[in-house]
Amino acid sequence: MTATPTARTLIWGGTVVTADQTFRADVYAEGGVIRAVGPDLEAPTGVTVVDAGGCYVMPGGIDPHTHMQLPFMGTVASDDFYSGTAAGLAGGTTMIIDFVIPNPKQNVMEAYRTWRGWAEKAAADYSFHVAITWWDESVHADMGTLVRDHGVNSFKHFMAYKNAIMCDDEVLVNSFSRALELGAMPTVHAENGELVFQLQKQLLAQGLTGPEAHPLSRPTAVEGEAANRAIQIAKVLGVPLYIVHVSCREALEAIARGRMDGHRVYGEVLAGHLLVDDSVYRHPDFDVAAAHVMSPPFRPKEHQAALWHGLQSGTLHTTATDHCCFCAPQKAAGRNDFSRIPNGTGGVEDRMAVLWHHGVNSGRLTMNEFVKVTSANAAQIFNIYPRKGTVAVGADADLVVWDPAATKTISARTHHQNADYNIFEGMEVRGLPRVTLTAGQIAWQDGDLRAVRGAGRYVNRPAFAPGFDAAAKRREALRPEGVDRG
Amino acid sequence: MTATPTARTLIWGGTVVTADQTFRADVYAEGGVIRAVGPDLEAPTGVTVVDAGGCYVMPGGIDPHTHMQLPFMGTVASDDFYSGTAAGLAGGTTMIIDFVIPNPKQNVMEAYRTWRGWAEKAAADYSFHVAITWWDESVHADMGTLVRDHGVNSFKHFMAYKNAIMCDDEVLVNSFSRALELGAMPTVHAENGELVFQLQKQLLAQGLTGPEAHPLSRPTAVEGEAANRAIQIAKVLGVPLYIVHVSCREALEAIARGRMDGHRVYGEVLAGHLLVDDSVYRHPDFDVAAAHVMSPPFRPKEHQAALWHGLQSGTLHTTATDHCCFCAPQKAAGRNDFSRIPNGTGGVEDRMAVLWHHGVNSGRLTMNEFVKVTSANAAQIFNIYPRKGTVAVGADADLVVWDPAATKTISARTHHQNADYNIFEGMEVRGLPRVTLTAGQIAWQDGDLRAVRGAGRYVNRPAFAPGFDAAAKRREALRPEGVDRG
Amino acid sequence: MTATPTARTLIWGGTVVTADQTFRADVYAEGGVIRAVGPDLEAPTGVTVVDAGGCYVMPGGIDPHTHMQLPFMGTVASDDFYSGTAAGLAGGTTMIIDFVIPNPKQNVMEAYRTWRGWAEKAAADYSFHVAITWWDESVHADMGTLVRDHGVNSFKHFMAYKNAIMCDDEVLVNSFSRALELGAMPTVHAENGELVFQLQKQLLAQGLTGPEAHPLSRPTAVEGEAANRAIQIAKVLGVPLYIVHVSCREALEAIARGRMDGHRVYGEVLAGHLLVDDSVYRHPDFDVAAAHVMSPPFRPKEHQAALWHGLQSGTLHTTATDHCCFCAPQKAAGRNDFSRIPNGTGGVEDRMAVLWHHGVNSGRLTMNEFVKVTSANAAQIFNIYPRKGTVAVGADADLVVWDPAATKTISARTHHQNADYNIFEGMEVRGLPRVTLTAGQIAWQDGDLRAVRGAGRYVNRPAFAPGFDAAAKRREALRPEGVDRG
Amino acid sequence: MTATPTARTLIWGGTVVTADQTFRADVYAEGGVIRAVGPDLEAPTGVTVVDAGGCYVMPGGIDPHTHMQLPFMGTVASDDFYSGTAAGLAGGTTMIIDFVIPNPKQNVMEAYRTWRGWAEKAAADYSFHVAITWWDESVHADMGTLVRDHGVNSFKHFMAYKNAIMCDDEVLVNSFSRALELGAMPTVHAENGELVFQLQKQLLAQGLTGPEAHPLSRPTAVEGEAANRAIQIAKVLGVPLYIVHVSCREALEAIARGRMDGHRVYGEVLAGHLLVDDSVYRHPDFDVAAAHVMSPPFRPKEHQAALWHGLQSGTLHTTATDHCCFCAPQKAAGRNDFSRIPNGTGGVEDRMAVLWHHGVNSGRLTMNEFVKVTSANAAQIFNIYPRKGTVAVGADADLVVWDPAATKTISARTHHQNADYNIFEGMEVRGLPRVTLTAGQIAWQDGDLRAVRGAGRYVNRPAFAPGFDAAAKRREALRPEGVDRG
Repeated sequence: MTATPTARTLIWGGTVVTADQTFRADVYAEGGVIRAVGPDLEAPTGVTVVDAGGCYVMPGGIDPHTHMQLPFMGTVASDDFYSGTAAGLAGGTTMIIDFVIPNPKQNVMEAYRTWRGWAEKAAADYSFHVAITWWDESVHADMGTLVRDHGVNSFKHFMAYKNAIMCDDEVLVNSFSRALELGAMPTVHAENGELVFQLQKQLLAQGLTGPEAHPLSRPTAVEGEAANRAIQIAKVLGVPLYIVHVSCREALEAIARGRMDGHRVYGEVLAGHLLVDDSVYRHPDFDVAAAHVMSPPFRPKEHQAALWHGLQSGTLHTTATDHCCFCAPQKAAGRNDFSRIPNGTGGVEDRMAVLWHHGVNSGRLTMNEFVKVTSANAAQIFNIYPRKGTVAVGADADLVVWDPAATKTISARTHHQNADYNIFEGMEVRGLPRVTLTAGQIAWQDGDLRAVRGAGRYVNRPAFAPGFDAAAKRREALRPEGVDRG
Repeated sequence: MTATPTARTLIWGGTVVTADQTFRADVYAEGGVIRAVGPDLEAPTGVTVVDAGGCYVMPGGIDPHTHMQLPFMGTVASDDFYSGTAAGLAGGTTMIIDFVIPNPKQNVMEAYRTWRGWAEKAAADYSFHVAITWWDESVHADMGTLVRDHGVNSFKHFMAYKNAIMCDDEVLVNSFSRALELGAMPTVHAENGELVFQLQKQLLAQGLTGPEAHPLSRPTAVEGEAANRAIQIAKVLGVPLYIVHVSCREALEAIARGRMDGHRVYGEVLAGHLLVDDSVYRHPDFDVAAAHVMSPPFRPKEHQAALWHGLQSGTLHTTATDHCCFCAPQKAAGRNDFSRIPNGTGGVEDRMAVLWHHGVNSGRLTMNEFVKVTSANAAQIFNIYPRKGTVAVGADADLVVWDPAATKTISARTHHQNADYNIFEGMEVRGLPRVTLTAGQIAWQDGDLRAVRGAGRYVNRPAFAPGFDAAAKRREALRPEGVDRG
Repeated sequence: MTATPTARTLIWGGTVVTADQTFRADVYAEGGVIRAVGPDLEAPTGVTVVDAGGCYVMPGGIDPHTHMQLPFMGTVASDDFYSGTAAGLAGGTTMIIDFVIPNPKQNVMEAYRTWRGWAEKAAADYSFHVAITWWDESVHADMGTLVRDHGVNSFKHFMAYKNAIMCDDEVLVNSFSRALELGAMPTVHAENGELVFQLQKQLLAQGLTGPEAHPLSRPTAVEGEAANRAIQIAKVLGVPLYIVHVSCREALEAIARGRMDGHRVYGEVLAGHLLVDDSVYRHPDFDVAAAHVMSPPFRPKEHQAALWHGLQSGTLHTTATDHCCFCAPQKAAGRNDFSRIPNGTGGVEDRMAVLWHHGVNSGRLTMNEFVKVTSANAAQIFNIYPRKGTVAVGADADLVVWDPAATKTISARTHHQNADYNIFEGMEVRGLPRVTLTAGQIAWQDGDLRAVRGAGRYVNRPAFAPGFDAAAKRREALRPEGVDRG
Repeated sequence: MTATPTARTLIWGGTVVTADQTFRADVYAEGGVIRAVGPDLEAPTGVTVVDAGGCYVMPGGIDPHTHMQLPFMGTVASDDFYSGTAAGLAGGTTMIIDFVIPNPKQNVMEAYRTWRGWAEKAAADYSFHVAITWWDESVHADMGTLVRDHGVNSFKHFMAYKNAIMCDDEVLVNSFSRALELGAMPTVHAENGELVFQLQKQLLAQGLTGPEAHPLSRPTAVEGEAANRAIQIAKVLGVPLYIVHVSCREALEAIARGRMDGHRVYGEVLAGHLLVDDSVYRHPDFDVAAAHVMSPPFRPKEHQAALWHGLQSGTLHTTATDHCCFCAPQKAAGRNDFSRIPNGTGGVEDRMAVLWHHGVNSGRLTMNEFVKVTSANAAQIFNIYPRKGTVAVGADADLVVWDPAATKTISARTHHQNADYNIFEGMEVRGLPRVTLTAGQIAWQDGDLRAVRGAGRYVNRPAFAPGFDAAAKRREALRPEGVDRG
């Protein structure tokens, strides 16, 4: 099912909040697209009217980092593209960017097609970063095909997971160089996989087999090193870079250094890293501790302030979840060896609410900044703005009507994610979606989830975003000259 | 003269560039305000049509730092509010924020009224930062009056110019605290005046009396120190801060540190500091050297890259000129004592062109970033957005039609500034305003300057901009508690 | 009493540890001076033999920051020069550098003579930094007199304590410039006194009157700002600088920046700041909380790691105590107003032990680094090396025989300080002085304190230490030139 | 030939300068060892008296980074162990630490024996770092053999030179971990070899084949990245690290960050990088440009100030030369392809003089700091202190009698290095060795070089230097604990 020309909605009486403005206006959508934004719009006959009184009308959230139904570490993530996107809609998120992850030596196009197939059941719009996990001429060619013919403008590189999907410097340099030619954004999971591998061995050899060893095997220096390496490689090659799930001060500072050198580096932070600390890994209940195992791990508390400051200062640009749920029976695979616990936690449903509560209510972020970091910046970086990420005529009618007075207590017992645990369990939040619209259709209203299997559309993302283009001009301007020794 | 309801203009065939978008659209203005933005707008009868083919239609520039007809160092700046704003219009700048600078002990409201009188002749819109140069209860009260009744939302503090308008820490702390209550932005000229005073004495005592001693009397550490001090004071008090004319790496890094601590600090950079270096002070011709005397001085070349990077990374937010012209006979007052050379240079006419050429053409900035740093950010920080700083329905029709292919060589012989020198003399630039509109009226077209004396309007700027508001919420969230020792 | 030619001591069987070496050697002292260092020295007849078996023989500690019997905030510090130096000897500290603090407008020489008189009772060697608390021609002259005729080579400046002994920038610039001429080291207590004053007012107005408000009135930014300011002023003037009691990351980073700019900046850290955190101020017992009131206050725990790293990296150079004891009845003066609690805590007796335990035993410092930061660096910076700060022929026989296996639990019940509280109360330490010698005399042995009233000598410290000299050469090398515009 | 018990020398009338002191003293050596240091020593009969009037008597220089007769890039370095060490003696350097560099897959012990054989002709003392260029169990075992049985306490890792001797992260992690067990110092040549490889290809493809492309293929980010990576790896594993030839601000800042995190990182800087900039590569004469080809390359001038500041602040610890001479006919191999120019330049003869002139004469360094960075620090880091690196009883009589008034102009025409080029050609220096002694023998006096082939001895360097030991204790203190989940 997709939005039809006949679907017409008027969001009435609210205050529109975009990345740069806050103003009283009604919003009228038809055929999945916003047709009017202004005060006192009239409701055509037959239109569905949404009461936004006392609410903020904002672009729906974009979660640029999810892994629905990912096959990983011998199991498969428990939220599929339908349940995961539906949970997102319940929380005000109207688009995800998920990942195609070929196995090493697997044909990239084949993997791409597999993921496209899986995603057809999605209830909200989606797109894909494609991971580069190995290198040969076919990968080089497939990157071109994906960018030119399939609307892919970003490629992911794992610097961790040795003996699996880890890239060494040679792959990074080759793939970043290729992305540069294609106008596509390289992204990295920044952890030094060699060190993680060594530390895991050492810890297991010391008899530290429980989840409490997980963060010890991935200290912040491991992430800071990899972030810095990827940034410097990108800088030397002249290609922008996006770092996923920045979790610690060291990685943040690497980004700040890159940016202060004039390089276009972007950083993403997970809602979880902003709000959960590493004490969870020492929880006496294995299930609880294991439920938090993800990489990079949750960090000592002092990193949280740094990450918030990163969002405030514009050193970090987007918020995501790395939504990748595994239930307790799946996590149990690592009961005797923390390195075998499937890595991942949920969050796609809660991101908007926890960021509003801890960001806007606390004064860390303005409402406009909230829009930037939950949708507009992601849309700009991944070049789907202003189709996504704003409330304006011509934009997709992916909207959230946000009730700043509504409250709830987050819990796995009530969430819509297909997961038996919630890393924000028990957190009270004020500020929740009253209504979520995807392509102009109401998908969530006052607690009623009306997500439609298959209603989501694949979103093509064109290459050569503006910042990318400027980078190209810059390289041209700096081209070196030879010395004539004739 | 002000824009009348009968003035109607259609800007046709161009590409609109705002802070966040680039799109093909015509722009229709009436009564000084933009009434429509969209493709293929129809021209009502009698409308003036501006051909924007091949051009970008952008918000007119805002220069947030000028000193028209300033009485300073025994003379008066040579551009008055008419000639200065007219020169701005010739260069695509449609609004200035100038400064009211009371003498110490002078009644602040009296000074304000004086400047308002002087400014009535302006050809473009304007507003005023008000300088706090001393402190007593009347100053405290007048700050309130200005904010509540006169549309002033920013107060300037000179940390230099000892024995004249310099603030010590006591005045800074009092005034910043008052600005916080009022929701007004404190701004600072960051140079340690005590050190400048001492260095001037030392240099003169060593017989270094020429303009080459000017930069030696104000090394970068002098600016870096003051910037850091003001930022830390603001941070401790919990008030945002705007630093004018950041000229060196040290001050930039102080801002970066402040922002990385989560504090709302904004930085302004002058076109001159981005492009002119300190070798000018050693020019053998006194007039040339003296023409460049301003504070902070032009800096060793390596600082320029840092400043560009500051704009690129979002550590600096606005570009300005500190336009304050003095002609050679005025500069001659310091022929035998560099410390008596009136400090100031021009630039209001050239800022947009030099930033486009060296920013956009070189790939340092995207076009959208150009709009951010020439107008949108200033409008947001000083809370007149979206009236100013964007191209949107309802905004003032202050627009520039920018021809990216037009070229010229900048020269005092051809500029419209009332100054016998141009710090960009001989610089070739590509990218110039074809047409400038102020309140929908054509003020510049194809080399024809049609600025109208008195057409400019005073722009009220409301207090409590969004970032300011968030800061207030933050303070609330962090309120300390006592210990009950009952 | 002073050391006589007849006092002869052989320290036998130990391992000598200096700033750069560790070696098996006996040490022979006569007439207060070390006469031989080497293996298997023979004991002349009548010599006192100290068994150093299993022990380290190190230079006695130098505490470069104490305030014995200081009149302050309406009372007088409870340890006088005798009791305080005796307590130092019990802990292995054989020299203090205390402070002469003239009242504003008080004749500096007069104050100097007063302190010299008070100090005659000291049991260990001592010297004085002299505080510059105001400025006129007499102060300028007296600084010269003190350096030339009285062995003073350092001047202290309080940037805090408004309306009392605080220096503004004008005094700092004048005094630093004068110190430069004289080859004397300026030192600063770095806190922005204007901000402290304002924050105290605000907190009291909010009803926060207890000791828990003390750290809130002096947040780390207040210290970081002042440290940076003093460093930049010193850098601009070209004079080295020493920052006392660095307590937080911000001040430490200011020092690191100054040093990375090639400037000679030295930092001192107190044993207390390394080991005590700010939770003490929220202790429910007023007496306990008030006992910890000193400035800068104890800091949140994360700063402790930064300070240790500062010692490890050579960004901090010396360790001190700011020993300035006040007993509970004195502290009670601020029961209803934290700003009236006399600022100060003890520590001169415990510094060596807590640094050994938490520094050497934990692997943070080598034994040689322990010697550097407890004596050698202070001796070098204040130009009394190698008379003090090493174990070598010709050096003063101020020695500590350190038993790395001895343990105790620190407590006010057993310490020798004249104070009813100990900020290290209950701390267990391993590593203690078995014997302390001052000028070759045993002053402490196996728990027996034999300090002799008046045995301490005033130590002259000559101007122009080597680093100072190099700085002078550097200034010469960088002298600017004029431009000939003949 | 080695020093015999009968060789007796008295250095008379000089001023001894060590890392921590400057004092008037004569020095008496016998049997290659210093027997007495003190004023007015009497000359036994038959002793050789060296007149040190007006001179400084300092420890001879240690150059911790040379490559004598290195087989490299298809040729062999032109200075062999005799000519190279002799040139060092002519310049006041009395010890080198050279490198054993096995080919990948070559047996490490075999390579070690080869180099030991080559070095037998040395005229001054020497030792060897051993490079780890590949990894298997034999390498692991040989590292142990070298440390335990052959006095090797440092291992070198090349992060550049892909397809030759480059280590990837896996080798780094394995070798660093092994070094940790053995108490040996890992060292790295920090350049990202993958990036260099890619940039070389790109530049050659663009037709940039001359030496001017050499620095473009190795920009500073390439070094900064690798330095940071090595430091973070070392930090995570808990092993100290020494970075050779730090040439740029980025690498320096990586060291500063590591040290400010409390990690023991040491940095070495080459005399060339302190004083030569990258303009040399654009010299119109290929031979001149090629003569400067080394890696890392000479850098833009602004890096020089940063490096000097690194020495001043204690962020850099040693100075070296990477002495590795190739003559013009050898360099010509890369006439049509800069990547084939043998990398290397000379300097072992000039290091002391250029550092004295530009360091001490300019006020950047004190004389004591000069000793630190030319000998004492290297001796301490590589654990041969106080045998080397100081002037004290028991130390080797490797001494230089330094005449601060002597001058010369450096030139290939007059130097003793077996090289047709000198990177300091034409530099005038003030301050030169009057006499150099190796093991108490005069090897250089007043322009007369008396180096003796084979007189140099292999210097065993024991493992577990003090800093290393503290690091071990630290690791113990931080050992993680498991959680008991019963």
